[in-house]
Amino acid sequence: MTAVEPLSGIPLPAPAGGEPYLLTPGPLTTARSTKEAMLVDWGSWDGEFRALTAELRRRLVEIAGGGDAYDCVPLQGSGSYAVEAMLGSFVPRDGKVLVLMNGAYGQRITRTLGYLGRAHVTLDKGDYLPPRGHEVGAMLDADPAITHVVVVHCETSSGILNPIEEIAAATAARGRKLLIDSMSAFGAAPLDAATLGYEAMVSSANKCIEGVPGFGFVVARKDSLAAAKGNSHSLSLDLHDQWAVMNKTGQWRFTPPTHAVAAFLEALRLHALEGGQPGRLARYTRNRDTVVAGMRALGFETLLGDRLMSPIIVTFFAPADPAFRFDRFYALMKDQGFIIYPGKLTVVDSFRIGCIGQLDEHVMRRVVAAADQALAAMGVATAAPPSSALDERKLQAA
Amino acid sequence: MTAVEPLSGIPLPAPAGGEPYLLTPGPLTTARSTKEAMLVDWGSWDGEFRALTAELRRRLVEIAGGGDAYDCVPLQGSGSYAVEAMLGSFVPRDGKVLVLMNGAYGQRITRTLGYLGRAHVTLDKGDYLPPRGHEVGAMLDADPAITHVVVVHCETSSGILNPIEEIAAATAARGRKLLIDSMSAFGAAPLDAATLGYEAMVSSANKCIEGVPGFGFVVARKDSLAAAKGNSHSLSLDLHDQWAVMNKTGQWRFTPPTHAVAAFLEALRLHALEGGQPGRLARYTRNRDTVVAGMRALGFETLLGDRLMSPIIVTFFAPADPAFRFDRFYALMKDQGFIIYPGKLTVVDSFRIGCIGQLDEHVMRRVVAAADQALAAMGVATAAPPSSALDERKLQAA
Ligand SMILES: Cc1ncc(COP(=O)(O)O)c(C=O)c1O
Ligand SMILES: Cc1ncc(COP(=O)(O)O)c(C=O)c1O
Repeated sequence: MTAVEPLSGIPLPAPAGGEPYLLTPGPLTTARSTKEAMLVDWGSWDGEFRALTAELRRRLVEIAGGGDAYDCVPLQGSGSYAVEAMLGSFVPRDGKVLVLMNGAYGQRITRTLGYLGRAHVTLDKGDYLPPRGHEVGAMLDADPAITHVVVVHCETSSGILNPIEEIAAATAARGRKLLIDSMSAFGAAPLDAATLGYEAMVSSANKCIEGVPGFGFVVARKDSLAAAKGNSHSLSLDLHDQWAVMNKTGQWRFTPPTHAVAAFLEALRLHALEGGQPGRLARYTRNRDTVVAGMRALGFETLLGDRLMSPIIVTFFAPADPAFRFDRFYALMKDQGFIIYPGKLTVVDSFRIGCIGQLDEHVMRRVVAAADQALAAMGVATAAPPSSALDERKLQAA
Repeated sequence: MTAVEPLSGIPLPAPAGGEPYLLTPGPLTTARSTKEAMLVDWGSWDGEFRALTAELRRRLVEIAGGGDAYDCVPLQGSGSYAVEAMLGSFVPRDGKVLVLMNGAYGQRITRTLGYLGRAHVTLDKGDYLPPRGHEVGAMLDADPAITHVVVVHCETSSGILNPIEEIAAATAARGRKLLIDSMSAFGAAPLDAATLGYEAMVSSANKCIEGVPGFGFVVARKDSLAAAKGNSHSLSLDLHDQWAVMNKTGQWRFTPPTHAVAAFLEALRLHALEGGQPGRLARYTRNRDTVVAGMRALGFETLLGDRLMSPIIVTFFAPADPAFRFDRFYALMKDQGFIIYPGKLTVVDSFRIGCIGQLDEHVMRRVVAAADQALAAMGVATAAPPSSALDERKLQAA
């Protein structure tokens, strides 16, 4: 392990044993001590484990700025399960949802609502344009049957940070309820419950809190949790039931991922040590600024302009040069110790580099150097994207 | 770590750092090397992780004796999620289910079917009587609308091992389909797919394979998986979709619990090393025989007679002596390094001791000695249960 210069008060050691860094939006590179917390088997019925669960719930409400009006309900499974649970538990069977879509995760919400048989309409902004507050307002004005607006905070498929404040304001002004998928942003991007007044938001263990995968969690208004009884289409994904049993017994209804929970408590400790959400945001922002500046210097273009680009994950266009092949680029980056992520755009070729996890600007500089090497090894003359991709990009300024 | 005498070829070290043994039906005490496999962060999109997933699926079909006709679909979440996924994916919307109930997990299946809106009838045998093949046959003969029979293999709430062969035979003879919740038994109790011809069975990572919690898995007929398209009430729990995407891409649809998967591969290696299902059954049987003989010598009575008692978990009646209090017994056992489990019977007070996990007969002897100490510390004169509990027990012979 090579310790690198400490930032924000915590040293970031390299992953053990030459393990590659994960430049992915979760699972991500976690701290050694987070993983070491999994070297114990906890009895899920035992008082000590119940105390872990209580602490986890308390701290997540605190990070969310939820105060007394909100509660936290952790739920076994991946983040998508928690999103589905939020939709099925809070949208009544006769409710109607406006889904703000600009990427894969918004699309998944729409698909989920189809399974659930909940009425919904969409505002589809394509691959990378933000849904705006005035558009939401107009749609709500036009359709009084809409009860809920659902938005993805950071749409991880492009890396865009959606304008959550103006969307929350437009929704609240019309007395509708807001549900937020803040999977990839919670704990780093600001998202204050008291200010936004959302009904519920969801995230998961293996994103900006930097735990390991195994569960998601919902932070929701207590009155909404109480009112959600009988809404859910699924026993496993019934947030009201999970909440009610957890409040009564201190236990998860079904076997919890005990090791992932123990790891999460350590991850929460490190999150606080780094200065909580603002501290984490500062480091991730430095990560993004370092990798974007470095990649641009190599000729790579980003999908998004600086204003919309999140500090979570950045989409780069694949170079136009026919010598560039993503598979080979991936392998060359991996050989140098970095696992990058494929793109998820429908129109143009792209790849993504995540800025979250136990990474700092020193690591990001090495990522850029590795990309430079990889281009050279492939014999790519220029990292510039095809002009069509650039045209796409200009659209967005319009 | 104190290494104890190796059994069945593998040494069983004590849990690290004075950690108590979990005498619970999962999460359970896992091997040190199983937990150590979680010290690596895996990229879920990466080829190496896809190889882990492929290996996991292959080996589970092999343990199930599934051959070419069956496939394995792992699913994020706890075991109950996998049960719900099995019910929602294989029972068509116009299907009808006969649920064989004799405890909490059969009851949960009925409750789940209520959420799903699938028609169902029950054969309710109370807390500890086994559903018999001739009873199943009679109910199927009387109601041709029934398409599926669902049974719990080892009903963990009492520890009974249900007579799965005669139930499978009665179901197959009438051309109906069999779904099995083998959560707590798979990998230890025999359950041969080729012989039983079930449509699907489900178990989870943290039971007899001795992994850590985080996912369940279904072993199902390939033709049934293919035919399940469009049945599911839930995107997250749609086994057809999970299966189709996994076969196409080698990936889990949503973020997998990467660390739990890596731990499971190590657990599978240890399972094979111990001689697979027969080897594991032999050790668990010795565990059960040791703890039952020892506890009976102290005056404790078991709920079940020897014929129905599984080698998974054993229910003991709480002693009639008013000096016995479960909370105190639990604490005294924990102080001596053993976490036991509360009972789950509706009628009489009881507690349970699990025989699964990294435990052997030496540990079980120490469990009995600890129980002896605990009784002495509480001043319990006799561990015999109230005679009413014994009457209950006699019922069962009838
Ligand atoms: C915004 C967003 N929503 C939902 C998900 C789905 O989470 P999971 O893969 O844990 O199911 C992700 C995963 O990256 C995400 O980034
Ligand atoms: C037979 C049986 N079915 C279902 C379950 C539920 O599994 P989980 O607690 O992982 O949801 C259990 C758990 O012990 C079980 O023993």
